Amino acid sequence: MFKKILIANRGEIAVRIIRACREMGIGTVAVYSTVDKEALHTQLADEAICIGPAPAKDSYLNMERIISACIAAKADAIHAGFGFLSENSKFVDMCSKCNIVFIGPSADVINKMGNKAEARNTMITANIPVVPGTKEPVYSAKQGKKFADEIGYPVIVKASSGGGGKGMRIVENKEEFEHQFNTAQIESVNAFGDDTMYIEKYVRNPRHIEFQILADKYGNVVQLGERDCSIQRHHQKLIEESPSIAISKKLRKKMGDTAVRAAKAAGYENAGTIEFLLDKDEKFYFIEMNTRIQVEHTVTETITGIDLVQEQIKIAMGEALSFTQEEVCLDGHSIECRINAENPANNFSPSPGKITNLHLPGGKGVRIDTALFCGYTVPAVYDSMIAKVIVHDSSREKAINKMRSVLGEFIIEGICTNIDFQYEILNNIDFRAGNISTDFISQTFRENSSN
Amino acid sequence: MFKKILIANRGEIAVRIIRACREMGIGTVAVYSTVDKEALHTQLADEAICIGPAPAKDSYLNMERIISACIAAKADAIHAGFGFLSENSKFVDMCSKCNIVFIGPSADVINKMGNKAEARNTMITANIPVVPGTKEPVYSAKQGKKFADEIGYPVIVKASSGGGGKGMRIVENKEEFEHQFNTAQIESVNAFGDDTMYIEKYVRNPRHIEFQILADKYGNVVQLGERDCSIQRHHQKLIEESPSIAISKKLRKKMGDTAVRAAKAAGYENAGTIEFLLDKDEKFYFIEMNTRIQVEHTVTETITGIDLVQEQIKIAMGEALSFTQEEVCLDGHSIECRINAENPANNFSPSPGKITNLHLPGGKGVRIDTALFCGYTVPAVYDSMIAKVIVHDSSREKAINKMRSVLGEFIIEGICTNIDFQYEILNNIDFRAGNISTDFISQTFRENSSN
Repeated sequence: MFKKILIANRGEIAVRIIRACREMGIGTVAVYSTVDKEALHTQLADEAICIGPAPAKDSYLNMERIISACIAAKADAIHAGFGFLSENSKFVDMCSKCNIVFIGPSADVINKMGNKAEARNTMITANIPVVPGTKEPVYSAKQGKKFADEIGYPVIVKASSGGGGKGMRIVENKEEFEHQFNTAQIESVNAFGDDTMYIEKYVRNPRHIEFQILADKYGNVVQLGERDCSIQRHHQKLIEESPSIAISKKLRKKMGDTAVRAAKAAGYENAGTIEFLLDKDEKFYFIEMNTRIQVEHTVTETITGIDLVQEQIKIAMGEALSFTQEEVCLDGHSIECRINAENPANNFSPSPGKITNLHLPGGKGVRIDTALFCGYTVPAVYDSMIAKVIVHDSSREKAINKMRSVLGEFIIEGICTNIDFQYEILNNIDFRAGNISTDFISQTFRENSSN
Repeated sequence: MFKKILIANRGEIAVRIIRACREMGIGTVAVYSTVDKEALHTQLADEAICIGPAPAKDSYLNMERIISACIAAKADAIHAGFGFLSENSKFVDMCSKCNIVFIGPSADVINKMGNKAEARNTMITANIPVVPGTKEPVYSAKQGKKFADEIGYPVIVKASSGGGGKGMRIVENKEEFEHQFNTAQIESVNAFGDDTMYIEKYVRNPRHIEFQILADKYGNVVQLGERDCSIQRHHQKLIEESPSIAISKKLRKKMGDTAVRAAKAAGYENAGTIEFLLDKDEKFYFIEMNTRIQVEHTVTETITGIDLVQEQIKIAMGEALSFTQEEVCLDGHSIECRINAENPANNFSPSPGKITNLHLPGGKGVRIDTALFCGYTVPAVYDSMIAKVIVHDSSREKAINKMRSVLGEFIIEGICTNIDFQYEILNNIDFRAGNISTDFISQTFRENSSN
């Protein structure tokens, strides 16, 4: 049993983890950068330790300082949330060497799934469908073009270490291959220090469907249904929902079983996500596994009633899952909108600043995960996501209506946000009909999704 | 189909009704007193009309002004929430004469259930168990004492028009009867302008168990499970939960069936509540019917997923209930704590004032219904309840732990509140074990419950 957990993160996810610990009677240690001295997570935790200044490399990414803080505070375990060190196998190794439990999978599994080529090969071996693509890493445009010519265009070029759309380019024809490949590779080198690329057949207008997995130390693996995360802008998810209206009960069973097999093939433990592309013919392809809690875990919590962060902690403490696959039931429909501090009028550029007025809506079926408070200053140096609005109702239509009501009531003054843009999406006739794909935003709002 | 609803109330319940209307696509008209010019309900509604100054008799209780506002705004219907005009049959009559739909039962039913002696007789006729007591109104101590001597002490003296503990006294023996009767009667005359009293056998250490009812225009009546509202201070509910741990599945069926029969006997329509006392031998007695939405409707919403305010509106529009008794299922455990602006150090006297700092907790399974915002001034002239915290979890123990976590996180500065007192109740060993009755607070905290 953990007595104390250090939370190696900030913002709403740090607050969310603190709440889970409190409910379980576990003490909490926050770490914070000098910028976050007044932040909500710093205030809410039982203890708070400053780990250095912004930028993140000097604080939230500084492994030594975080481990030192953990030892000083006598915490038993670290929860790293998402982003920052949450998928850093070196950090997991360090924890292990210092006798600190990292709440998540082992360093080996993180490594294996974090390397996209290796993850792909693991899945191919386990007979999990993947998008046709290169089996070996590609380092040059010439080598890549040969493969692309073989499988046919369009193809997608991806950085092996990539994420969030960085180091990723769609190539429509052979003429533009070299240019796009090189651009993606340079982006990857700059962002991740890695020139390893791979190439896949590009699935047009797919849905992004992911399955939430829980796996304990004793080989029990369950899936908690899917999330439809097709509404993305520049490969950043904006709206997530569960269940997906594109998934029949039969397809859910098939994809869910596949996700469980994938997690088992990876030797997975703790909470994780298997991401698929789903095409119009109900064909689906594994794209990657996320070895951490995700931003959108909330919609799964809402329809299953299962607290995923508490489950993570219990698994890390060595508890067996307390329910079977058959006991998981999905109730109603849940939607999450990510609220970002950004200015839609200025190409969604970040809009940090002081919150001068704040009203968070509430009521039946409404959950808001945020670290905002009136008077708080949203810093310029971190991610622009400042709140997650999650609604629950008996049908998708009702959930959409509830979300519109909530967004209409939301008041944030002092900074710009994407609330009006989210409202516009919810009012869109195709969105309301469920005619969505990962190209929905770029096609509907005529944005260039590769910029 | 209603196009527009006028909300004849203020505070969190007005906000809650506005949200229900928004989700249904129905326009909203708020009414407000001059004191409530900046109040949240005034700001959130589509339209807002000032109906006069505080005190309530010049605004929220002024029927003519509210009806005028409704006609001026061309609203189709009025939702009166709880308190104020919500159980005033004269107001319901006025609405009807002006062609305005009152969202609730008919004036006749309100009259019949509002008069406690008549309600009791209706139930006796329908073979619903009631606490042994006077069948006819009692107007003098002498007349009352004769009856009390017959059924034996302790007895309880109640004002026929009473509510919230006003005009109510427990009499332990014949010696104190006259004094207690007279005190209660004077209180009733002062509070309700009515000297009609009645007398009942006093059930010692009972639980207050109430059943939520929905009844449409077509004779369909369903019950949505019980609420245990035993935690009361001076007859004011403080904590409500659903389900009650004192109710087995078999007893729930029996009491639920009785509640449905009671509603049918009353010729009831819309949302209502049948209140029972439950003794230690699983004997239960009808005490009264509330012909309105209640403060604690939220815990029933939480475990059934049914939006009671939306159901009220649909019933008033003439829709049939969209589900049967068999389709109602109760999921997990829900608890509500009422947060009052009052000073526990000064005998819980009201503590109005300006909110200088506010942090509302959130997260999974947490709902806060409130009209507070940072900078808002809690007026001295209205009820002291300023927020309702509602939690949902898979078990009572987990729900209690969640509530403790939420109350621990709650920040309200500038006024005093009962949050610490609520926290103390949640930590009490008897409360946690479920050993509660309506005397819990007075016995545990050694308060004199008749003051």
